[in-house]
Amino acid sequence: MTATDAPPLVPAAEPGTADLRVAVLGVGLMGADHVARLHRRVSGARVAAVSDAATDRADQVAAEVPGCRVVPDPLAAVADPEIDAVVVASPGRFHEEQVLACIDRGIPVLCEKPLTLEAASSLAVVRAEDAYAARTGGRLVQVGFMRRFDPEYAQLRELIASGGIGEPLVVHCAHRNPAVPPGVTTESVVNDSVVHEVDVARFLLGEEIAAVTVLRPRSTRHAAEELSDPLLVLLETTGGRVVDVEVFVSTGLAYEVRTEVVGEDGSAMIGIPQGLVRQSAGPGGAVRGTTVPAGFRERFATAYDLELQRWVDAARRGTVDGPGAWDGYAAQAVCAAGVEALLCGRRTEVRMEQR
Amino acid sequence: MTATDAPPLVPAAEPGTADLRVAVLGVGLMGADHVARLHRRVSGARVAAVSDAATDRADQVAAEVPGCRVVPDPLAAVADPEIDAVVVASPGRFHEEQVLACIDRGIPVLCEKPLTLEAASSLAVVRAEDAYAARTGGRLVQVGFMRRFDPEYAQLRELIASGGIGEPLVVHCAHRNPAVPPGVTTESVVNDSVVHEVDVARFLLGEEIAAVTVLRPRSTRHAAEELSDPLLVLLETTGGRVVDVEVFVSTGLAYEVRTEVVGEDGSAMIGIPQGLVRQSAGPGGAVRGTTVPAGFRERFATAYDLELQRWVDAARRGTVDGPGAWDGYAAQAVCAAGVEALLCGRRTEVRMEQR
Amino acid sequence: MTATDAPPLVPAAEPGTADLRVAVLGVGLMGADHVARLHRRVSGARVAAVSDAATDRADQVAAEVPGCRVVPDPLAAVADPEIDAVVVASPGRFHEEQVLACIDRGIPVLCEKPLTLEAASSLAVVRAEDAYAARTGGRLVQVGFMRRFDPEYAQLRELIASGGIGEPLVVHCAHRNPAVPPGVTTESVVNDSVVHEVDVARFLLGEEIAAVTVLRPRSTRHAAEELSDPLLVLLETTGGRVVDVEVFVSTGLAYEVRTEVVGEDGSAMIGIPQGLVRQSAGPGGAVRGTTVPAGFRERFATAYDLELQRWVDAARRGTVDGPGAWDGYAAQAVCAAGVEALLCGRRTEVRMEQR
Amino acid sequence: MTATDAPPLVPAAEPGTADLRVAVLGVGLMGADHVARLHRRVSGARVAAVSDAATDRADQVAAEVPGCRVVPDPLAAVADPEIDAVVVASPGRFHEEQVLACIDRGIPVLCEKPLTLEAASSLAVVRAEDAYAARTGGRLVQVGFMRRFDPEYAQLRELIASGGIGEPLVVHCAHRNPAVPPGVTTESVVNDSVVHEVDVARFLLGEEIAAVTVLRPRSTRHAAEELSDPLLVLLETTGGRVVDVEVFVSTGLAYEVRTEVVGEDGSAMIGIPQGLVRQSAGPGGAVRGTTVPAGFRERFATAYDLELQRWVDAARRGTVDGPGAWDGYAAQAVCAAGVEALLCGRRTEVRMEQR
Repeated sequence: MTATDAPPLVPAAEPGTADLRVAVLGVGLMGADHVARLHRRVSGARVAAVSDAATDRADQVAAEVPGCRVVPDPLAAVADPEIDAVVVASPGRFHEEQVLACIDRGIPVLCEKPLTLEAASSLAVVRAEDAYAARTGGRLVQVGFMRRFDPEYAQLRELIASGGIGEPLVVHCAHRNPAVPPGVTTESVVNDSVVHEVDVARFLLGEEIAAVTVLRPRSTRHAAEELSDPLLVLLETTGGRVVDVEVFVSTGLAYEVRTEVVGEDGSAMIGIPQGLVRQSAGPGGAVRGTTVPAGFRERFATAYDLELQRWVDAARRGTVDGPGAWDGYAAQAVCAAGVEALLCGRRTEVRMEQR
Repeated sequence: MTATDAPPLVPAAEPGTADLRVAVLGVGLMGADHVARLHRRVSGARVAAVSDAATDRADQVAAEVPGCRVVPDPLAAVADPEIDAVVVASPGRFHEEQVLACIDRGIPVLCEKPLTLEAASSLAVVRAEDAYAARTGGRLVQVGFMRRFDPEYAQLRELIASGGIGEPLVVHCAHRNPAVPPGVTTESVVNDSVVHEVDVARFLLGEEIAAVTVLRPRSTRHAAEELSDPLLVLLETTGGRVVDVEVFVSTGLAYEVRTEVVGEDGSAMIGIPQGLVRQSAGPGGAVRGTTVPAGFRERFATAYDLELQRWVDAARRGTVDGPGAWDGYAAQAVCAAGVEALLCGRRTEVRMEQR
Repeated sequence: MTATDAPPLVPAAEPGTADLRVAVLGVGLMGADHVARLHRRVSGARVAAVSDAATDRADQVAAEVPGCRVVPDPLAAVADPEIDAVVVASPGRFHEEQVLACIDRGIPVLCEKPLTLEAASSLAVVRAEDAYAARTGGRLVQVGFMRRFDPEYAQLRELIASGGIGEPLVVHCAHRNPAVPPGVTTESVVNDSVVHEVDVARFLLGEEIAAVTVLRPRSTRHAAEELSDPLLVLLETTGGRVVDVEVFVSTGLAYEVRTEVVGEDGSAMIGIPQGLVRQSAGPGGAVRGTTVPAGFRERFATAYDLELQRWVDAARRGTVDGPGAWDGYAAQAVCAAGVEALLCGRRTEVRMEQR
Repeated sequence: MTATDAPPLVPAAEPGTADLRVAVLGVGLMGADHVARLHRRVSGARVAAVSDAATDRADQVAAEVPGCRVVPDPLAAVADPEIDAVVVASPGRFHEEQVLACIDRGIPVLCEKPLTLEAASSLAVVRAEDAYAARTGGRLVQVGFMRRFDPEYAQLRELIASGGIGEPLVVHCAHRNPAVPPGVTTESVVNDSVVHEVDVARFLLGEEIAAVTVLRPRSTRHAAEELSDPLLVLLETTGGRVVDVEVFVSTGLAYEVRTEVVGEDGSAMIGIPQGLVRQSAGPGGAVRGTTVPAGFRERFATAYDLELQRWVDAARRGTVDGPGAWDGYAAQAVCAAGVEALLCGRRTEVRMEQR
C-alpha cells in the first residue's frame, strides 16, 4: 500500500482549496516556532487552535494568527471537528495521552520528541497506531526527528543507500552545545541530546541499536556540579556496526553537530562549518574564522521547514511521510539502555519488542 | 515614510484570512518554478492565473494548481480585478510593457531580471514608479536579483555594514557554469551572467559602478565558436573600489559562485563548497571531494523561497521589500557599458541618470 | 641537568668540523630512507657503516654513499670505534640486543619503534639507560615516534600546553591506511599502528594510559580473511581523559591521520587534507578534491627530516632531544593491554612499573 | 645537453667526500638565513666565507659557523680559489657586479631576487652567462625565486603540465602582507612583491608576460601616506592567458599567498590556510580558526631549504637546477612595464629582447 492509496482522512481536503486546520498543543519555545512556521512559511495549512497550560502565552501566540482560537483543554482541541491535524509540542509527560487521543479520532499528529517518556508507553502508541493501520491502511503518527529533513543528513543517507561509500562500518558523531539550562542532568543529556544521534544512526544505517556503552571522561569545569560532561557514548547495531558519540553540552562555544560515516569504499562527513569564511585580526594573532550557527534552531531551520511542510502535505493525503511511532519507540528503548549504561558503567544491551 | 505607513493597496488583505491572488506571466523554467514555489512553499499567496504564449504549457502548469486559471493575454491578467499582484517571468522583451501595466493599475509586481532590455526603458520604469510613489507613497516594483536573499550574501553584507572587515576595498568574484545553451553569445553572458555580479557589487558596497573593463583571455576549447569564454570583467565603483569578475560559462564542471571581499581590517569569502564532504577512490588516486550544487536553482533554492515569501509579505502590506526598479536600471546601465567595453576592448565609463 | 651540561660523548665533535659517524643497522624500507636522509638532507652527520642480514641490499645502499662501509655483524658496527652513533632499523626482535649494546658502549642510538617486542624487555632497556644516566648524567636512547616532530602535532601540543583550548578532555583519532601487506594480523595492527596513537595521546596529554578497550565493528570486505578491520580502540588516561581511535588499514583510499582534541575552552584538529585543492570533472559529477598524501612517508617526510636532524644535533652534544626509552616502554605496555583487550573483548587495565 | 653532461666545474667534488665551499655575500636577514640553512640543514656544502659592509654583522654570523672566514671585499671572496660557489644576498645594486664576477670565474652563483635592478643589466647577465654556456656547455646562475621549490607550487605546476585541469586560461593571485617597513613605495611593491607573482605566472604557464595593467583601488587607511595599497595588477601572457594579482601589503593580518589556476577542464588552488584548525571562543562569538603563517619565512621555510639543497647538489655537478638568469631578466622586464603601467594608469606592453 502506498501513500496515494490511503483513504482520504481529511474530508474534502483538495490541495489548494482548503487548508489543513491544525491545533498546536503546547506553545513554549518549540510550539511557538511551529505555529510561526505553519503560519508564515508552510503552504496548505493554517493554525486553527492553540492550547497551553500557560493561558497568557497561548493568548499571545494566538493573537499573532488571524482566525486562531485558544482552546484551554488540549484534549478538547483534539476532539474538535473543526481540527484536521495536531502538533504535539507539550511537555513530554502529556505526549502519550495526547497522541493516543489523535489516534482514537483518526487524525494525523506530529509529536515532538520524545514520543513518550518511557519505552513501554512508546510501544503502547506503536500498538495503537498499528491497530488503526490494520483497520484503515493509514498511518497517523510522525515523531519530530527533524534531522531526517536536513538536506545534509538526507544527502548523506542517500550517498550510503546508493553505495557511494560502500557498506558503512563506523560512524563518528559529535554533538556540542555551548551551554544547557540549569536543571539538566546527565540522564537528561542522554534522553534529550543523545536521542538525536540514536535516530540519526538508525536513519543512516537502517538498523536497530543492540547495545550501548557510556564513558564519562573528565568533566569540564564549565559543567554544572552534577553533570558528567562530556560523555562518550558507544552504540553497537544489530548488524555489528559501531557508532561513537561525543556529547558535550557545556562547550561555551557554538552549536556544532558533525557526523562522519566510514564505509568500505569511502567516507563522508557533514556538519563542517561552512558558509561565510572571515579572516580578521583577533587577540593573539590573525585567525581565519568561519561562522558557525548559534544554535539548533538556526542550524536546522530548513529542516524544521521541510519537516512541517512534508507533514502537512502527507496529512492532507491521509498519510505520514517522516519518522513514525516505531522510530519514537526505538529511540526511547535505546535511551533507556543508555541511562542504564551510564549508571552501571557497563555495556548494556537494548531490549526491544518485536515489531 | 516606512513600509507600514503605506496605504493598503490590496483591499481587505488581512494576513491569514485572504491570500494574495497572483498572476504569473510566462511559465517557462523560471516561471514554472515560481508557480510551484507560490503554490507549495510560500504562505499567504496563491497562484490565481498564469499566462504564456505557449498555451499548452500554461494549461499544464495551471492543471497542477487548483483554482488557477489560464489567461491567454498577459495584459488582461494584469487588468483582472481578481488579481492582486503579478510575477513577470516572460521573455525580457515583454517586461517593459507588462511592468508598466502593473504600475498603471497600482499593483505589486516581481519582475525577473533584466528589468527591461535597455537602460533607457529601465529608466522609464523607474520614472513611472517614482510618479506612482509621489502620489501614493508606495512602491510597486521588485526585480528578481535573488542573491540578495541568499543567507550567505545577506550575511556578507551585514558583516561589511557592521564594520567587521573595515572599509571594503577590493571584491573578487567567480561565476562559473558547467555549460550554456546554444545561442548564448559573449554579449549575452555580460547581460545575463555578469549582471548578477553587478547587482552583488552594488548590494555589498552600496555604491554605483562607474567604469567597466572587459578582458578576453584565451578561450576554452569547450566554448561555442563565437563565444569568448572565460571573460575577466573589472568594475570600478564611484567610491574607487575595484571588483574583478571571472565569468566562465563552459567549465564542464559544477555551478560555482564565489565572492570574496577584501577590506581594511579583514576579508570574507562566501560560496566555498560545503555541506557533505566525501572521500572515495577515483581514477588516478584518492580524492576528498565536497559536493557542489548542480546549478543555480539548487544553489539558490532558499534564496528564491525567501525572495518570493518576502515579496508576498510586502505586497500584502502594500510595499516592496527587495531590489527595486532603480536596481534594475542600474544593472542595465552597467551591462550596457560592459557590452561596449567588451566590443571596444577598453575601459568604458558607465552613464547613469541622476536618481 | 640540561642538555648543554651533558658530557661530550663524541670526542672532538665540534659542530661543522667533524660529522657524526653513524651506523645504520637494517636497511629495509625505513633503514634505507634513514640512510638517504642522513646522506642527503641532514647536516652534521654521515653514514659511515650499514649492516643488514641481506648483504646485497646492504651493498646496494652503501654504494650510494661515498665512504660508507658494509659491516656484516651489527654488533661489530656498534662496537666499532669509528662509529659515533647508531640508528636501529632492523626487525623488532633484534632491537633489545642492539640498543643494549649501544648503551653498553655509551653511544647515542635512535631506535625505530617498537623499542622492543615486549613491555618487559622495553623496561629492561629503560633500566639500563637509567643506570648509564645515573653514572654520567646523559641520555642515549631515542625511539622513532616521528609524529612528535611533525609541525602539526608539535603545534597542537603547544596549543594545549599554552591553555589555548583549556583542559583537554576527549581526543578523537583516525588512522587510515589504504592497504596493508599480507601477513598483517589484528594484533599487529594494534602493535604497529595503534602504537602511534598511543604515543600521540601520551605526547599531547602528558599522561599515561590506564586502560584500553577494543571494539570490533563489522569488517570491510577488503580486509584479509583473518583481519578485524576497522577497530575502535578506547584509551583512558590516568587523569580520566578518554581517547577514541578508529584504526582502519584497508580503506583502499589514501593515507589519512587525523587528531582532534576537545578541551574545556575550545577544540583543535590536525590532519585535515590541505595543500592543493583541485576541482575537476569525475565520473558521477563534478567533485572538488584536495590531494591527500599517498602514505606515511609522504605525510611525515618533514617529521622524519626533523627527527633525524634533531637526533644528530643532540647526539653531537651528547644528549637526547626526542622520545626516550620510557616512551618506548610505555607504548609497549599499552599495546600489550590493547592486544589483551582485543582478545578478551573487555576493558583492560594497563600494567606499568613505576618509573 | 642535459645536466649530467655538464663538465665538472668544481674539481674533485665527489658527493659526500668534499663539501661545496660557499661564500655568502651580504648577511642581512636573508643572507643570515641562508648561512644558517647551509650550515644547519643543507647537506654537501659548508659556509667558508661571509662578506658584508657591516663588518660586525659579518663577524657575528661567521662566529656561529666553525671554519667560516670574514672576507671584507666581496669580489675578493668570489676570486678566492678556496671558494667553490657563491650566494649573493647583498643589496640589489651590487648584484650585477658580483654575479658577473662569478660568471667570469666560472663558479655557480645563487643570486637573491632581483637579479639586477634594471631589465638592461639583467639582460647583460643573461648574455654573459650565455657566452660562458656557449664555451663550456654549463650554466652558472640561479635566481632566488624560491616559490618554485615550494611543494604546493611544484604540485600545481605538475598538475597543469600533466593536463590535469586542461589548458590554463586564467590565474588569480592574492599576495597579502600584514605590514611593510617604512620607506616602501608603490613602485617597490611592484618590484619586490609583484615580482614573485610574475615569476609564478611564468613558471606555471610556461609563457612570457606581454602586457601589464595596474589598477589602484581605494587605499586602506592602514597604508603609509605615499602608498597605493592594495593594487590590482593584470598580466597578459604571450599566449593570451590573463593573470590577476591582488597585492595588499598593509592588511594588518597574516601573511597570505594564494594562487588559483582556472583551466579548460578544472581548476586548482593553493595557499588555503591549513594545518591546525582551532575552535575557541572569541570576542563577538565563537569562531573556528585555522592558523596562518606569520610571514614568508615561515610559509616558505621548506621552499628555502629545497632551493638551497638543490642548488648545492646541482653546483657540485657543475650545473643549475632552478630559475636561471633569463628568469631573472624576464621578471625585471615585466616589473619595469608594471611600474610604467602604475604611473601612466594604462595597459603597458612588456618589452623583452629575444632570447
